[in-house]
Amino acid sequence: MKSEILRLLKESDGYLSGQQLCSHFLVSRTAVWKVMEQLKKEGYEIEAVRNKGYRLVDSPDVMSRAEIESLAKGRWAGARVVYYEETDSTNTRAKEAADKGGGQGEHGTLFVAERQTAGKGRRGRGWESPAGASIYMTLLLRPDFLPIKAPGLTLLMAVAVAKGIRKCTGLACKIKWPNDVVINGKKVCGILTEMSAEIGYINHVVIGVGINVNQERFPKEIQDRAVSLKQELLRSVRRSELIAAVMEEFEVCYEIFLKTEDLSGIKEQYNRLLVNQDQDVKVLEPGNEYEAHALGINDTGELMVRMKDGRERCVYAGEVSVRGVYGYV
Amino acid sequence: MKSEILRLLKESDGYLSGQQLCSHFLVSRTAVWKVMEQLKKEGYEIEAVRNKGYRLVDSPDVMSRAEIESLAKGRWAGARVVYYEETDSTNTRAKEAADKGGGQGEHGTLFVAERQTAGKGRRGRGWESPAGASIYMTLLLRPDFLPIKAPGLTLLMAVAVAKGIRKCTGLACKIKWPNDVVINGKKVCGILTEMSAEIGYINHVVIGVGINVNQERFPKEIQDRAVSLKQELLRSVRRSELIAAVMEEFEVCYEIFLKTEDLSGIKEQYNRLLVNQDQDVKVLEPGNEYEAHALGINDTGELMVRMKDGRERCVYAGEVSVRGVYGYV
Repeated sequence: MKSEILRLLKESDGYLSGQQLCSHFLVSRTAVWKVMEQLKKEGYEIEAVRNKGYRLVDSPDVMSRAEIESLAKGRWAGARVVYYEETDSTNTRAKEAADKGGGQGEHGTLFVAERQTAGKGRRGRGWESPAGASIYMTLLLRPDFLPIKAPGLTLLMAVAVAKGIRKCTGLACKIKWPNDVVINGKKVCGILTEMSAEIGYINHVVIGVGINVNQERFPKEIQDRAVSLKQELLRSVRRSELIAAVMEEFEVCYEIFLKTEDLSGIKEQYNRLLVNQDQDVKVLEPGNEYEAHALGINDTGELMVRMKDGRERCVYAGEVSVRGVYGYV
Repeated sequence: MKSEILRLLKESDGYLSGQQLCSHFLVSRTAVWKVMEQLKKEGYEIEAVRNKGYRLVDSPDVMSRAEIESLAKGRWAGARVVYYEETDSTNTRAKEAADKGGGQGEHGTLFVAERQTAGKGRRGRGWESPAGASIYMTLLLRPDFLPIKAPGLTLLMAVAVAKGIRKCTGLACKIKWPNDVVINGKKVCGILTEMSAEIGYINHVVIGVGINVNQERFPKEIQDRAVSLKQELLRSVRRSELIAAVMEEFEVCYEIFLKTEDLSGIKEQYNRLLVNQDQDVKVLEPGNEYEAHALGINDTGELMVRMKDGRERCVYAGEVSVRGVYGYV
């Protein structure tokens, strides 16, 4: 009921009558009043006027199941939220829920944490996850296609994050191939996709997303490579709204992906957002390093590059990394 | 110490002196005596003769960590055993250990259970796992190659199981593509391989193996499709010895696989064991079914078939299943 009342408060232009809420949810006035008190405690500014009802004056940067669910616009992506004040890692939570089955283990559940005690970066590395300023979330998917198609999902999420940030903030963020989101060459979001599969059958895919939202500064070691939305905007961003925007974009992208089971329907959007597009890049293969010109991704998400001798190659995300010839991106 | 004493008893032709065991392990005579008593309780027939020492008269069909480790011949595959009288599923245990890290989560650990309460078949189906007659085991691997190579591992295990059974029993078992092991057309072993991966990086692979060893009969519904080694041999087989034989074969196969990261070094062995080799098969693709002639696997483990019009195709295990034109295999 809390998520629903919050959604009604947000969608209402004027006052919501307490009586109407009572009859809508078939509960007492006291029950409605209690929910309002809970919401106030969580930081919502709610005005209550006799004979008029309740009105939401201001929503702060609240992260909670009710807040995120109340903002969800899609049919399935993030429609069910599992929220933790603190957990080890949202990817780990999502994988466990998937293995266990039950409602939380279903396609589209979103796991969100205020703080991670064992946040995960790529290849078993850590991901610093203090409270209060970031988004740490993991979307659980149970696709029906072959495991070999799954790497495309991580590029879909990069598009969804970039578009979600643009929508919420107007910032011109871009994608660094394959799946970092950057602003002016600094990283604002990292994505860690993990899959559990049998031969020819996906058990589940979890896509972990870490977004720097309201940090005011970063540790010295990374301050020339990392940036938050607040640093660019000089104001705070409501994390739950950004989460909802990203989920809405992801749902659209995913359904386009499903039609062809590849990136052909997303490729153009992706390439428009690609910071490497038409840039000289350094391709770092194990034991081999060369400069090339990036042409954009193909239908399977590989980066097509033209080498100095004019030959074109497809570069696979797992095998190589790509760097701008000048600087980090 | 128990595994080591058991190994020494097995390797010794005559009597093992208690005094020698004491000085070898730097323990008291009582400690050695206690281990012998434990082993007797587990079913080993051990003779103790004053002034001569201990002699192993007979090993029954014991499954235990000590028994399996005492038989291990390889360097890493199954050298560390985690044994359960009862567990949900050895694949689940192996995946959890891998996620958790630590010693049990290392490459080569073998998880064995006498009984599974939630044994897993392919695509989320169950696998009946009563106690006393079967092998339920899962080998944990942490390969350093790309996820796309992993499906080959399941074919390696099929070869290892088939060769292990042949070595222990002399039975002419064969492989039904991609990874069932069969005797006279009936299934004696199923394999379930699961992978956890990031883009371009394998977290871990678990290969679950279920072998019908000492069953005297099967439920009516499956008796024309399943068979045990005992039904064919008319005598029992020691499960721990078979486990050790399979692990030894797997280790050899895996190291051949690593050289090229494909099946080129194993293909000939596999195809000699392949029951479908040079047979007419029915290829069952989703929404498409046709007869063809099976030619054997290629370097990536796909089944090459020649269709009626003479064209050749590669059939991918995830997408299709293959049936003999006559009967189950």
